[in-house]
Amino acid sequence: MRVIFLVLMFCAAFASASATEPQPLSLMPMPASVHMKAGQFMLDSSFTVGIGGPSDPRLQRTVERFLDDVRRQTAMPPLDMKVADAAQAKLVIHSEHGSKAVQELGEDESYSLEITPAGATLNAVTPLGVMRGLQTFLQLVKTTSDGFAVPAVTIQDKPRFPWRGLMIDVGRHFIPLDVLKRNLDGMAAVKLNVFHWHLSENQGFRIESKKFPKLQEMGSDGLYYTQDEVRELIAYAWDRGIRVVPEFDMPGHSTAWFVGYPELASGPGPYQIERKWGVFDPAMDPTEERTYKFLDGFIGEMAKLFPDQYFHIGGDEVNGKEWNANPKIQAFMRAHGLKTNQDLQAYFNTRVQKIVSKHGKTMVGWDEILRPDLPKDIVVQSWRGQDSLAAAAKLGYRGILSFGYYVDLMWPASRHYEVDPISGAAANLTTDEMKLILGGEACMWSEYVSPENIDSRIWPRTAAIAERLWSPQSVTDVNSMYQRLQEVSRWLDWLGLTHNSAYNPMLRRIAGSDDISALRTFADVVEPVKDYNREELATVEATSLSPLNRVIDAARPESSTAREFADLVNSIVAGKATAEEKRQARAMLTLWRDNQNNLQPLEAQSFLLKEIVPLSQDLSTVSATGLQALDYIDRGERAPEPWAAQQFALLEQAQKPKAQLLLVVVPSVQKLVEASSGLKAPTPQK
Amino acid sequence: MRVIFLVLMFCAAFASASATEPQPLSLMPMPASVHMKAGQFMLDSSFTVGIGGPSDPRLQRTVERFLDDVRRQTAMPPLDMKVADAAQAKLVIHSEHGSKAVQELGEDESYSLEITPAGATLNAVTPLGVMRGLQTFLQLVKTTSDGFAVPAVTIQDKPRFPWRGLMIDVGRHFIPLDVLKRNLDGMAAVKLNVFHWHLSENQGFRIESKKFPKLQEMGSDGLYYTQDEVRELIAYAWDRGIRVVPEFDMPGHSTAWFVGYPELASGPGPYQIERKWGVFDPAMDPTEERTYKFLDGFIGEMAKLFPDQYFHIGGDEVNGKEWNANPKIQAFMRAHGLKTNQDLQAYFNTRVQKIVSKHGKTMVGWDEILRPDLPKDIVVQSWRGQDSLAAAAKLGYRGILSFGYYVDLMWPASRHYEVDPISGAAANLTTDEMKLILGGEACMWSEYVSPENIDSRIWPRTAAIAERLWSPQSVTDVNSMYQRLQEVSRWLDWLGLTHNSAYNPMLRRIAGSDDISALRTFADVVEPVKDYNREELATVEATSLSPLNRVIDAARPESSTAREFADLVNSIVAGKATAEEKRQARAMLTLWRDNQNNLQPLEAQSFLLKEIVPLSQDLSTVSATGLQALDYIDRGERAPEPWAAQQFALLEQAQKPKAQLLLVVVPSVQKLVEASSGLKAPTPQK
Repeated sequence: MRVIFLVLMFCAAFASASATEPQPLSLMPMPASVHMKAGQFMLDSSFTVGIGGPSDPRLQRTVERFLDDVRRQTAMPPLDMKVADAAQAKLVIHSEHGSKAVQELGEDESYSLEITPAGATLNAVTPLGVMRGLQTFLQLVKTTSDGFAVPAVTIQDKPRFPWRGLMIDVGRHFIPLDVLKRNLDGMAAVKLNVFHWHLSENQGFRIESKKFPKLQEMGSDGLYYTQDEVRELIAYAWDRGIRVVPEFDMPGHSTAWFVGYPELASGPGPYQIERKWGVFDPAMDPTEERTYKFLDGFIGEMAKLFPDQYFHIGGDEVNGKEWNANPKIQAFMRAHGLKTNQDLQAYFNTRVQKIVSKHGKTMVGWDEILRPDLPKDIVVQSWRGQDSLAAAAKLGYRGILSFGYYVDLMWPASRHYEVDPISGAAANLTTDEMKLILGGEACMWSEYVSPENIDSRIWPRTAAIAERLWSPQSVTDVNSMYQRLQEVSRWLDWLGLTHNSAYNPMLRRIAGSDDISALRTFADVVEPVKDYNREELATVEATSLSPLNRVIDAARPESSTAREFADLVNSIVAGKATAEEKRQARAMLTLWRDNQNNLQPLEAQSFLLKEIVPLSQDLSTVSATGLQALDYIDRGERAPEPWAAQQFALLEQAQKPKAQLLLVVVPSVQKLVEASSGLKAPTPQK
Repeated sequence: MRVIFLVLMFCAAFASASATEPQPLSLMPMPASVHMKAGQFMLDSSFTVGIGGPSDPRLQRTVERFLDDVRRQTAMPPLDMKVADAAQAKLVIHSEHGSKAVQELGEDESYSLEITPAGATLNAVTPLGVMRGLQTFLQLVKTTSDGFAVPAVTIQDKPRFPWRGLMIDVGRHFIPLDVLKRNLDGMAAVKLNVFHWHLSENQGFRIESKKFPKLQEMGSDGLYYTQDEVRELIAYAWDRGIRVVPEFDMPGHSTAWFVGYPELASGPGPYQIERKWGVFDPAMDPTEERTYKFLDGFIGEMAKLFPDQYFHIGGDEVNGKEWNANPKIQAFMRAHGLKTNQDLQAYFNTRVQKIVSKHGKTMVGWDEILRPDLPKDIVVQSWRGQDSLAAAAKLGYRGILSFGYYVDLMWPASRHYEVDPISGAAANLTTDEMKLILGGEACMWSEYVSPENIDSRIWPRTAAIAERLWSPQSVTDVNSMYQRLQEVSRWLDWLGLTHNSAYNPMLRRIAGSDDISALRTFADVVEPVKDYNREELATVEATSLSPLNRVIDAARPESSTAREFADLVNSIVAGKATAEEKRQARAMLTLWRDNQNNLQPLEAQSFLLKEIVPLSQDLSTVSATGLQALDYIDRGERAPEPWAAQQFALLEQAQKPKAQLLLVVVPSVQKLVEASSGLKAPTPQK
């Protein structure tokens, strides 16, 4: 499945075609093969869709949803654009087969889409392929000088990897069903096909168990999904070609289970729902038969609820402290020749795997579960990296990559984009071993997300990960990726994702005012600190009760303003900048230099602005430096060394995080100072 | 009910109070009495609400929703802020009575809200009063330098009128349930209490009848509400203290009924759902007993579905053509001494009123239904005006005003705001007669609205109408209204209304581009033409199949940019402008003058932009004129008469609608030319 496809005429997508269609196609993920042709298909109220192949209600609903989307793009009323007889339809869809009752890993998702000025055809082996092809069609719709149109094109497409997922952790912060649904819409738009639902955590057990109701009654603060809601979400995902894989993390990350059922734990209890973040001591007791009896009942119940073949048991980050402290467990380990806690966990995993298997499911777990004594059908999800995946593959285990795809770490899209499942040690695997690498998953861990800002942490960056997992390995142009990412981001707006729309309201709350222009100018050029620095730099420890209403919670993970500025600066220091580019860079720096004056009145009226004062002052100072450097460059004059040294020192200070925020225009200003002075900035001291 | 309340200390709301709270309170509708005090109540995670009085699930849900709203305002997580024991709660709520099973017209909505730095109490006679008071509390929450806070204040409040409604016509364009729900949230936020649901029209019959299923099957294009959905909406409205009054327009406006049941009509049929707008010939046959038999069955079914006491039968705009053309009807009229079609309609109304009454309901109808032979308990809804209401009151009939509150006519909020139900002839009624005037309703007729733009036609202007109907008659300061309207508008954003958030996406569709800055600059200073000029100026007749994706569909009914500019110009021509105000006016004019250059590249790429080219050129020309006038004024030089004459001619041209849009900065530029030249612009020729 995951072998590298022949990239048929891939570059054609960027070649200029007919005179009426000068722009490259903004498709994401980029299809395996795109062939542009002359002309375009006009999309007007006479647009109709015909469905061939076996009758399939899921496909029917897919097409109805597609028409809703086209109407949203064009504002056509619901009476226009209908499903019609395939003989007369403008877009004729054909799927060889109908839907399977349960979507399978590796089910054919390929499609071919042929668009001519007269009409379009979409052929696929399965309804899944039709779904993927219709998303491509939607991304092709454009407003043109003649009307709404889709360019004439031939697309042959299929995914590089069969497992392309998004994990959402609903344990640390509960995420309501409607928020998950809109994220499923986003996933479908970028052809992701697995929703990995991380349902239990130390901070919350988020699903109704009818067998063990104290799980949700005592472990969720009332914030959980009923089984009806779970079925509703699964049906919603199925309609969009998305599998739902539940995760119940065990034996660690399980404090919330023990509030209602302390007998499962290895310590004496009693237990409370955790409010803090981190790795905690409580773990299930692997030495008691009642633990497995409970898990047999629980997994049996959940295996019925979730139709997917795969069942995730977590298995990560057990610190072993409760095991060490429990003499009975220590005695058990000695009696069974289990030397380490890892051995004990392996024993636990083997037992759990048998339960999962008994209930007809295939087990998935994080890196830690991997031990060669487990059967070969399990799947390892790696947060450790491609080498770990490669090691698993060499042992014959299938794997999916999440290392490099943690969207909570606030990396730029480009950094996720360059992470390839088949790289590092994985690149040296045999072809057969490579096939064991099934794909990857973006992971949204939720310490710092709420229903309000979660979309902005997932989107649009996850679309870049989706492209990595769908498109040919050769699709790596970062500039093209960013250009298309911006269009996808707007399309996600139409679908109801709030990654853009929630920004201004959050800033208004912070400002305590309607007039947020100065705050927005500031927020546009800062980013939350990266990796786990938010914890490390916290002055007050964050908990699940902390409001997420600070600038860091509104600020985008990746500043597009800073990227635009960096592009301008790169042109300038390369001596290639146009007058207009120079003017733009100067205008940005001037705006930023003067911004502190405009922000000051707001600072007095909101407690949430106080923490950003030093960084706002830095922005002002740094921008003044940038303007001076530009002056030197424009005059063709070399900036004096003492001035440059002073600026480097100042920039080093400005580069340090404040209020857990980074001022991300500093590196570009540093480049300007370097270019103006001919000096290199000293390497910053830690 | 509607007698004018003693305005206790009303002006206190605008008086500066303690040093910590320098701003006037942004409440809308303004309460009957506001007494500001020193200090503020800090709203943090320890906030709790206690509920006293009789146990009432509706009140409980109200408080839970209130806490959701407070959490949204502050981004507190769902674990913070709880319902608590009334003894310890920070906000103690007390309602003397529980909810009635069906909300009644005139039910007590008064409340008193007392906020001190230590806590708050909200007392009311009924849960309705609590609902109104909680909305006031929400509007008081502000981000301050110390945290989220509510100012210390004493508020005594009750509505001026008991019937404060919003009508939405879902017949001409179907409006989905979720859109109606968010509009009910908006209504509750501004204390409106009647949702008038205009459910049938020539263009669509929008509700499921189980007795007469061909009504929706053949008359709705599949776009109708099931009875379950109707019950869901009624429950949603009830929880928010909003009555739902259904309207089934008869005997005219009823083509959609006849598609399935042509035997009800006065013409030979067959009938099709109307696609065009206007008044059509088809009307029910008032001379056939089967008509009344049908209506008895239908009204009986609907009377059970809708719990409200009031039942609207429309009754407007019968052109009588089908009656004139039907010899059998003519014979009936002669036989019964009915001289005119009005007489025939009165006969029909009398019969229908008996049916409505038989099913336990009180009839409501538009102006035309009023004839002194109808019983005195009916209610007349006036689209004709206060004089019509006064005439009805003199005859002993109750009335509600909608004249002046048609939000589809694109009037500015100020114009709606100045329409008072007790004015004109109504101001001369006796006190007892005045009591018959129950209030009013904003009306959203839906020829030109879709789910996408309907919110922008209703909000925020309807909040000004809501204030007119709730607040004391003396509350008439237009500047204060606009200031508070803007804050309410932002609060409506939080509640999910899309009047602001849909604007940019619609402009992006029109532009066919992400870069909408030039289009937005343009769209910000135009308004759709007023009254019924959209029809009159149409080059292609609009129908229910026309896409609503033009600039006129995105442009706001009222340009706040133009209002800001007008304020600056008024300062300048009065010789009172500060240097900063002059600078701002100049900056706006410069932006507009140069905008055509920036818009031009977009015009070439979108068919939807072509029609605005002439108006965009006008904006450029007019702004250049404005800048020249400012130059004269700044130099203290009188502009030469030939120049002024030329500009007046040019401005007159620019004032004419183009693409059914008005360039609304023209009158202000005209003022500048007048001030610079000392001349008056000639009165424009029609």
